[in-house]
Amino acid sequence: MYNKDKVALTPPLGWNSWDCYGPAVNEEQLLGNAAYMAEHLKSHGWEYVVCDIQWYEPEAGKYHWDYNRFAQLCMDENGRLLPAENRFPSAANGAGFKPIADQVHAMGLKFGIHIMRGVPRLAVHNRLKIKGTDISCHTIAHRNSICAWNTDMYGVDADREGAQAYYDSIFELYASWGIDYVKVDDICNVKATPLEEYSARREIEMIRKAIDGCGRNMVLSLSPGPAVIKEAWHLAKHANMWRITDDFWDNWPSLLEMFWRCEVWQAHVKPGQYPDCDMLPLGHISITEDGKGHYTNFTKPEQVTLMTLWGIFRAPLIMGGELRDNDAFTLSLLTNDELLHLNQHGGTPLQLFRDETKAAWLNFVGETPYIALFNLQAEPAEVSASLTELVGDASYTAVELWTGETTAVQGEITAQLEPHGAKIFKLI
Amino acid sequence: MYNKDKVALTPPLGWNSWDCYGPAVNEEQLLGNAAYMAEHLKSHGWEYVVCDIQWYEPEAGKYHWDYNRFAQLCMDENGRLLPAENRFPSAANGAGFKPIADQVHAMGLKFGIHIMRGVPRLAVHNRLKIKGTDISCHTIAHRNSICAWNTDMYGVDADREGAQAYYDSIFELYASWGIDYVKVDDICNVKATPLEEYSARREIEMIRKAIDGCGRNMVLSLSPGPAVIKEAWHLAKHANMWRITDDFWDNWPSLLEMFWRCEVWQAHVKPGQYPDCDMLPLGHISITEDGKGHYTNFTKPEQVTLMTLWGIFRAPLIMGGELRDNDAFTLSLLTNDELLHLNQHGGTPLQLFRDETKAAWLNFVGETPYIALFNLQAEPAEVSASLTELVGDASYTAVELWTGETTAVQGEITAQLEPHGAKIFKLI
Amino acid sequence: MYNKDKVALTPPLGWNSWDCYGPAVNEEQLLGNAAYMAEHLKSHGWEYVVCDIQWYEPEAGKYHWDYNRFAQLCMDENGRLLPAENRFPSAANGAGFKPIADQVHAMGLKFGIHIMRGVPRLAVHNRLKIKGTDISCHTIAHRNSICAWNTDMYGVDADREGAQAYYDSIFELYASWGIDYVKVDDICNVKATPLEEYSARREIEMIRKAIDGCGRNMVLSLSPGPAVIKEAWHLAKHANMWRITDDFWDNWPSLLEMFWRCEVWQAHVKPGQYPDCDMLPLGHISITEDGKGHYTNFTKPEQVTLMTLWGIFRAPLIMGGELRDNDAFTLSLLTNDELLHLNQHGGTPLQLFRDETKAAWLNFVGETPYIALFNLQAEPAEVSASLTELVGDASYTAVELWTGETTAVQGEITAQLEPHGAKIFKLI
Amino acid sequence: MYNKDKVALTPPLGWNSWDCYGPAVNEEQLLGNAAYMAEHLKSHGWEYVVCDIQWYEPEAGKYHWDYNRFAQLCMDENGRLLPAENRFPSAANGAGFKPIADQVHAMGLKFGIHIMRGVPRLAVHNRLKIKGTDISCHTIAHRNSICAWNTDMYGVDADREGAQAYYDSIFELYASWGIDYVKVDDICNVKATPLEEYSARREIEMIRKAIDGCGRNMVLSLSPGPAVIKEAWHLAKHANMWRITDDFWDNWPSLLEMFWRCEVWQAHVKPGQYPDCDMLPLGHISITEDGKGHYTNFTKPEQVTLMTLWGIFRAPLIMGGELRDNDAFTLSLLTNDELLHLNQHGGTPLQLFRDETKAAWLNFVGETPYIALFNLQAEPAEVSASLTELVGDASYTAVELWTGETTAVQGEITAQLEPHGAKIFKLI
Repeated sequence: MYNKDKVALTPPLGWNSWDCYGPAVNEEQLLGNAAYMAEHLKSHGWEYVVCDIQWYEPEAGKYHWDYNRFAQLCMDENGRLLPAENRFPSAANGAGFKPIADQVHAMGLKFGIHIMRGVPRLAVHNRLKIKGTDISCHTIAHRNSICAWNTDMYGVDADREGAQAYYDSIFELYASWGIDYVKVDDICNVKATPLEEYSARREIEMIRKAIDGCGRNMVLSLSPGPAVIKEAWHLAKHANMWRITDDFWDNWPSLLEMFWRCEVWQAHVKPGQYPDCDMLPLGHISITEDGKGHYTNFTKPEQVTLMTLWGIFRAPLIMGGELRDNDAFTLSLLTNDELLHLNQHGGTPLQLFRDETKAAWLNFVGETPYIALFNLQAEPAEVSASLTELVGDASYTAVELWTGETTAVQGEITAQLEPHGAKIFKLI
Repeated sequence: MYNKDKVALTPPLGWNSWDCYGPAVNEEQLLGNAAYMAEHLKSHGWEYVVCDIQWYEPEAGKYHWDYNRFAQLCMDENGRLLPAENRFPSAANGAGFKPIADQVHAMGLKFGIHIMRGVPRLAVHNRLKIKGTDISCHTIAHRNSICAWNTDMYGVDADREGAQAYYDSIFELYASWGIDYVKVDDICNVKATPLEEYSARREIEMIRKAIDGCGRNMVLSLSPGPAVIKEAWHLAKHANMWRITDDFWDNWPSLLEMFWRCEVWQAHVKPGQYPDCDMLPLGHISITEDGKGHYTNFTKPEQVTLMTLWGIFRAPLIMGGELRDNDAFTLSLLTNDELLHLNQHGGTPLQLFRDETKAAWLNFVGETPYIALFNLQAEPAEVSASLTELVGDASYTAVELWTGETTAVQGEITAQLEPHGAKIFKLI
Repeated sequence: MYNKDKVALTPPLGWNSWDCYGPAVNEEQLLGNAAYMAEHLKSHGWEYVVCDIQWYEPEAGKYHWDYNRFAQLCMDENGRLLPAENRFPSAANGAGFKPIADQVHAMGLKFGIHIMRGVPRLAVHNRLKIKGTDISCHTIAHRNSICAWNTDMYGVDADREGAQAYYDSIFELYASWGIDYVKVDDICNVKATPLEEYSARREIEMIRKAIDGCGRNMVLSLSPGPAVIKEAWHLAKHANMWRITDDFWDNWPSLLEMFWRCEVWQAHVKPGQYPDCDMLPLGHISITEDGKGHYTNFTKPEQVTLMTLWGIFRAPLIMGGELRDNDAFTLSLLTNDELLHLNQHGGTPLQLFRDETKAAWLNFVGETPYIALFNLQAEPAEVSASLTELVGDASYTAVELWTGETTAVQGEITAQLEPHGAKIFKLI
Repeated sequence: MYNKDKVALTPPLGWNSWDCYGPAVNEEQLLGNAAYMAEHLKSHGWEYVVCDIQWYEPEAGKYHWDYNRFAQLCMDENGRLLPAENRFPSAANGAGFKPIADQVHAMGLKFGIHIMRGVPRLAVHNRLKIKGTDISCHTIAHRNSICAWNTDMYGVDADREGAQAYYDSIFELYASWGIDYVKVDDICNVKATPLEEYSARREIEMIRKAIDGCGRNMVLSLSPGPAVIKEAWHLAKHANMWRITDDFWDNWPSLLEMFWRCEVWQAHVKPGQYPDCDMLPLGHISITEDGKGHYTNFTKPEQVTLMTLWGIFRAPLIMGGELRDNDAFTLSLLTNDELLHLNQHGGTPLQLFRDETKAAWLNFVGETPYIALFNLQAEPAEVSASLTELVGDASYTAVELWTGETTAVQGEITAQLEPHGAKIFKLI
């Protein structure tokens, strides 16, 4: 275990603004969701409130969920991005996110922000000086590294003098605000090889070093995926969580796909090191300026499947929906203490089998086995798993975590599953 | 034949500033080479004088042959690049390249410039308006198309309103200056497929349309290579010449490689449509601020091989060395009227054979066959080609174009060749 | 032009057994189709009758259109495949295909066969001796070259002694039978590079040499496609036709795809050198043992589109359907003498334009222009082409080749087209 | 842990015939090396004696280290390969490897063999029946799966009836011989995806099932590498060791490369599941028919580096040299009990760092840390590793395992290393 792992000895539980508000979230929405979390979720272990992309863009949301191209971003004289005051009024007078972080902390919660890797293009072309140096931002911008889907930043060239100083300067600022969690974007699905001029590895290492030196613990989350499996050891060494999927939304094919993503990454779930299946697109999401979005397109069995897979795989659980619009079913998905216990305190998960129609996973909390059975078909199905090899031939009582039903099992466990449904059993 | 082919019914013959001066060429050098051409080469058919990259960058050359990153380029209020006046004094008062073009024209020659595809990044971030419109340059910049090796421009997104208007505006300016030849860079080695967001095809088509509408004939040359053979029909339809190689310099492996590049492209040599083997790095090249460069590293036989291959393949011949420093041998390479006659008036070339050690090519001017024999080895060698299949069994007198030697041949032609050397025979 | 081109100065016109009978064709069917051709098509220029794959496999067809795996093939003591006598009774007593070829010749037609590149696996494992040598077939088999979809052969390793002797031995046999056309399979869609151990180029060259030395002219046709465009010059040098597509069948997406295949290959259509769009799946095809197949799934407009594209592109026309079951419409497609004239005597075709909805092509016979307009949409559409650039502004009478309708045109030509339909105009 | 892991709770230690005898090993050599192992190595934990490739080929070695193409292999009437009696006399009368295995067992050691995945081509073309069935071998051969470098076998098509029965039949035979270890070749560096017709996964699963059902424990080793990291979970589930490299020989670039291979695979070292760095090419290797080979080209420091990396990474240690020709230094490398203790009883290894010049690894036996420092340069160098993060700030005595030298360390450990050399410290 690395020192950086200690900030997340169990998978982070939290909320992120992207799935409900895209780039347009504002102060009221952040604090409103924080208040909800404090009241309804904190006692179940949830703690992070995370503001996603483009909080520094006054016009974010003007083009709905697309990004303004070549936008006029808010920043200080050192090219450090600042919250747009029209969206985050408490940031006025250079306060940044400190007032919001303070309020979130006062609720007993933690506060996180999203950043893009790199240096703002405007800071480069306006030749702003890196804080505490005489080096212009244009000298550290990489000449051949941009984000494919957003025009705000240039990548930072680790070979240039001032590169680390720039990253240090922004994390110094974030530490002064009281940030507890940083989701760094456009950095995780890049393959690093000796042959490529640009290497995401170098920027990840600069960010790690900046966090280690900023005087404040922060969870480091890397996006977007899919991460490259060959980089697993490097991600585990430098980050706390890294996305193994591209953006995940509320449709069955994406959920189905997560089964083979988890299959590939299963050996890499360790304390402080979590393959990340992305946010939970549950409840009220995709909300536009008129306040209207839609409730998740997942069926109830699919939502159970999602929570069961994330739960037993021990993925970070970051709710994506507007918490204040949760219905009772959505809330129940987030407050299943038995499942959360497994998620927080289990070990490295093991896929028992997977084919076109079904899958099964195993995990343990201490000596207690948990087995999840999944029906990947669009029709009801019976799914069984042999217990003999990995759990032995003893008799168990199987407690299903979503229904509380109990059955006696020996040698094999079987469940009748709804279309795209799942059950998860604790064997006692 | 397309209308655009008529501007180059024979392969362009000219000089380009890159091989000798890189990005740092100045007015005196342009005009000095033009004067040399008028005096020594014009009578042999040479006519184009071309100013290569970054004439709009005042500091070009400050970093020797590297490009300043994120440089402060000269441009008008519409984001159209202008010659840097410190390097091109006659461009003062908004005259642009007109005074230089006028002088070149007065010598009976033609004048060309290099441009990068795209719109200047500074014009984008400063939101300059496209000439004659109310559209800001930032609205036409492609969000995911930059040059891999130069930070001056963003690609232009053909799907955005104003994209064609921008290209029209710059070619209107070039026409007003009297430009005869445009070498467009960062546009030719890009694979265009339906799956890729960015397609070089679209920018090529906008440039073609802008030239056709600008009121002045201009040769359109596309760089850098290697061009993609699958795009051959598209290049032939829109351009007059397109690079089939990356930058070509004075070393044997690059020259050897050109043999298989020519092999692949041979069927595509047609009037007005020329696969381009890049400039001739002969004579005095790679000159830095102190005025010192080096004389081509090619041996004399290699220089003969180069001229012979370019000649019979009917590649455009664009001299790269400082003409005023030509020695007698270098000048002799450029003034072989028999070879130039073949280059200008031959047909589609045909490779007779090629293996690791030797190659042979055939072309015709009218009914007269020309055969070139190449020794690709580092030792002297005898190379033969059978004449029977393609030229028949008649008796010929073979006149070697570099030496004037004649021999009687029938059925087969044989030559003793120096290491990396060549001979080329006209059969009469 | 190479000597080998002279056997096919115009695109071959013929019939092939694959589309109607797959691997199971027999003597009666070959001769029956030949007789039909002699009676109905020969006067329009058709001449080749070609027996497709696995004529040496007694059980071909037993698994319908699939190939028996590891079948017991008929061959002589030198590993040369022989017609299965149960299917071709006249081949008895070692006569091979000579009796059939003789009959086809007597009708004034020509006879062709299909072969797989390589040496029979059975000849390898049974260590049969190559004719006229003491070399066992197992010494020339390539250790890492098999066909991906058929288990009959091993590739021949050009580096092994006996490799050329083997190919010579089989073409000597084919010449003795009177074969006029050889379709070599599993050889055309292989990319040849210096890095790959196996190179199709080497087998193509051995086959070319074997034909040149066998004492009889034969058209050399290479399959399957898609051929690699980078190999165009090599294919043009050694073969008469080469497939630019994988197997082509009677569905619109495949026909639509042919438009971009032709786009890419247009410059390579020359006398004796034809990019091959595959057989015409028209009329009665896909016939199984019970004698029942289906009539082409193409609509009538699609069939006109197919014939128009193949016609103006100057692809070889090889009918795939059972000729004796032709209806009047199918026969009319094969006997449009104006279209056949263009196909046989046109020049290198030129695509005027192509997008998602339409396409246009141009060709000339002598000075006479032909223009084909295509509607690629599923609804009726009007399609126009400008004549100005390539044909000039003169007044023409446009004669539509399928309907005979005439219209006066100047500067532009327009047609109302059926869904997926085409018209082709001769301008006089 | 899976049941199959129990046969190799610690990394296998043994000897394999390939590095010294290639395909030509014989009975005397197997038993001679076994006797040496029993006398000199067994007390240090070594136990496996493994006969490598082509024991069923009477002429193996005739072409030195190349494989005869399309050889006449020894097999029974069911297509099951048998030892060539000219090389293994005790195999006469159908005894197979039982007499040799019995003798090895009598020495207190275990016996292993190499096999190629698949069914012999001769069994296919001769249509031998699979044991206990009426199914011919030709029905289970895959139509598109051969080995790229050896012509003995066809892959087995898991979709065909009889496929599992064939694998069961050969493992039944191996169990009857008393085989303890099977190295399956041509199976490990194949990428398995849903898009590819052939999948190595399917053959691995059939082999796993055949071993599980054969009534005898056998270590399953998969070759050659490099294994695909995306398949790590599948390999861990079905095999005991899998090659992460192509064939490894005695040159520094290959050894250097192993550092990044181990880097990528480090998380996957678990009981019964070992990424395999290939045999140890130490001592007398590459022996030809005249009995002469060469002593390893590795320098002594490189040999120490090799053993140190394999040791701390917990790779299986399979000696490749002729044991009877070991010199004292070579023997000392194999009998360092402290290193063997770490190799056998350590945990999952962790790379501390790696760059172009140096590397460091950490492992633990229980609570005791071991740290290895490597000099990857060709000059002597000092290499240090910080202990603080992972081992803490306590004071330790560092015992170097190759020299026994001790030093006091705290917070950091430093070593002076020879060119390409290593040291490994136990911290007590």
